[in-house]
Amino acid sequence: MNIALLGYGTVGKSVAELLTKQDIGITIKKILRRPGAAAGPLMTDSFDEILADPDISCIMEALPGKEPALGYIRDALRAGKHVVTSNKAALAADFPTLLSLAKEHNVSLLYEASCGGGIPWLENLKKAARLNKITALSGILNGTSNYILDKMDTEGCTFEEALKDAQALGYAEADPTADIGGFDVYNKALISCSLAYQTPICTDFPVCGIEKLTKEILNSFHAKSKSLRLMMLSVRKDNHYAVGVAPVVLPSNSIEANVHLNYNCASLTGDLVGELKFYGQGAGGYPTADAVLQDLLQIRDNTAQPVCLDQKLLYDDGLLTGTGYFADGKILSGKSLAELTALAHQSNVFMAFEPDPA
Amino acid sequence: MNIALLGYGTVGKSVAELLTKQDIGITIKKILRRPGAAAGPLMTDSFDEILADPDISCIMEALPGKEPALGYIRDALRAGKHVVTSNKAALAADFPTLLSLAKEHNVSLLYEASCGGGIPWLENLKKAARLNKITALSGILNGTSNYILDKMDTEGCTFEEALKDAQALGYAEADPTADIGGFDVYNKALISCSLAYQTPICTDFPVCGIEKLTKEILNSFHAKSKSLRLMMLSVRKDNHYAVGVAPVVLPSNSIEANVHLNYNCASLTGDLVGELKFYGQGAGGYPTADAVLQDLLQIRDNTAQPVCLDQKLLYDDGLLTGTGYFADGKILSGKSLAELTALAHQSNVFMAFEPDPA
Repeated sequence: MNIALLGYGTVGKSVAELLTKQDIGITIKKILRRPGAAAGPLMTDSFDEILADPDISCIMEALPGKEPALGYIRDALRAGKHVVTSNKAALAADFPTLLSLAKEHNVSLLYEASCGGGIPWLENLKKAARLNKITALSGILNGTSNYILDKMDTEGCTFEEALKDAQALGYAEADPTADIGGFDVYNKALISCSLAYQTPICTDFPVCGIEKLTKEILNSFHAKSKSLRLMMLSVRKDNHYAVGVAPVVLPSNSIEANVHLNYNCASLTGDLVGELKFYGQGAGGYPTADAVLQDLLQIRDNTAQPVCLDQKLLYDDGLLTGTGYFADGKILSGKSLAELTALAHQSNVFMAFEPDPA
Repeated sequence: MNIALLGYGTVGKSVAELLTKQDIGITIKKILRRPGAAAGPLMTDSFDEILADPDISCIMEALPGKEPALGYIRDALRAGKHVVTSNKAALAADFPTLLSLAKEHNVSLLYEASCGGGIPWLENLKKAARLNKITALSGILNGTSNYILDKMDTEGCTFEEALKDAQALGYAEADPTADIGGFDVYNKALISCSLAYQTPICTDFPVCGIEKLTKEILNSFHAKSKSLRLMMLSVRKDNHYAVGVAPVVLPSNSIEANVHLNYNCASLTGDLVGELKFYGQGAGGYPTADAVLQDLLQIRDNTAQPVCLDQKLLYDDGLLTGTGYFADGKILSGKSLAELTALAHQSNVFMAFEPDPA
């Protein structure tokens, strides 16, 4: 199988390296780079050239950010090419349409690397959803924010010190807004919920970040044997669901409170299988490339299962309720995460959410 | 697809119930029960009748213990029927032969439910092993012993009290030897290592149980912020590997030390993907039936990947070294788990193993 690689950053380079080292019957025929950077025998700066090449049956998209990636994915599917992508921003921007396009053109669209890096989260979620009614999702899906929270936890440093350290290690971008503001997790939550509930997901759900967390707030939770993790949370009841992203208050002896460094951990609850958790490296060249290669093997072997968002579930804020702990000392119980998040944004203070027991 | 069910205990009944509720194109045509118990329209006590039925293309084996299950699996594969089994004892007794038989007769043999109940552990391990060199495995794979250890941990009760409680809840058998002695984990370790290293596994590896654990020993680890879990441990280096089962000393803030109740958690380390962990219900009717149905769907869709134990790895005790803490106060460092286990058996005292850092 001949593929084209779009993008040659950390993920693209690792995919290229592994496909050169291991002969799994998948060959890179072209690599798209930005104009000026396309120097090398396989490299091009023309996406049209790739699209027009009948020998290329699959596109591996590993560009940064939503555009031009989203346009390329759409065009590739319309041209009857399979697509593998690691790009959560592009996927989340138009997930139902992309899945429909893949179905319409009878090709596969796979995206394991987009949520949880090397963790086989989405594939296992899809499989669980075939047989189970998924009743809840949750997960630590951003390594940067987890690194910051864990470092503040275990070393007692400030938010700023922990962020600086994450940036020095290459975990956090120069502009860390997407990571610490919860917007990266928003994209992953949207993709995960779509697969879990097989329905188009409401794009306007609450997102609360950790930007305003202080050492003192964290210590006050510590004193009560609790920890904080930035998480996606989702609940489904009959044909309603809620989803949100927030710093979540957890017992110190929970699995999530013991997810350290930049690791991720995603959970599903099914009516048959119960609770499953998947833990691993949520980013990094080789782990992410491993997820990409697993997708490519499915396309090579023609074993990918198509996904249909053909259920009609309704979004209902009221399913996700709990207690909000605000940095100004306010504690509000029995409120929805949406209400609490709106209040936190309004008053511009940190808020941690403790979900009501299921 | 028409299947026959062998056995009608917790797993068999749950599989039958789910296949009746959900139409996934899989129909139970016959159910084998022991002579005298076969009352009902689908029931029979003749395995030969099932074997001779050309309409039955797949056998789901859920009998207790090694025999007659192992003989039935062999006969079914030889007759060109696919086999799904939840029976770790039968599998572990002759795993390389069973895999060869499946290959020879061009049928699938799947066994997700045999290790870790509802957790998709083996399938993900197989997939990881396609692309990664697996360098380590570990796991809590026995819910009964984990329940006992966790209960002693969190409630400060004695081993006997915790065991009685596990028996009352139906987690432990009247004779709990296989669970607390580590022999159940032995079978799962053998199956897991076979898939990880793609080689026939040495059947004579160290197994150390938790039968002789006392409250006082556990408290002495607690005082050092450590916990105990009964685990499979395995390490691979180049073409050598070691494997064993023992009560393992863990930091209290590790994931495994925070696996509570009767949950399981299995881990792999790959040279690309890094560490992955899979957590969930390791037993129970519905979770196990979910794993069985996932296997059946693979057979229905013809997507099962054949497994070949065609690598030639050598067993080497010396790869798995650490410190043994003996109940009589002896502490031995830098020894292999095999040596320490032999000593524990010889002197008939409890031993906990703390692996050397990798």
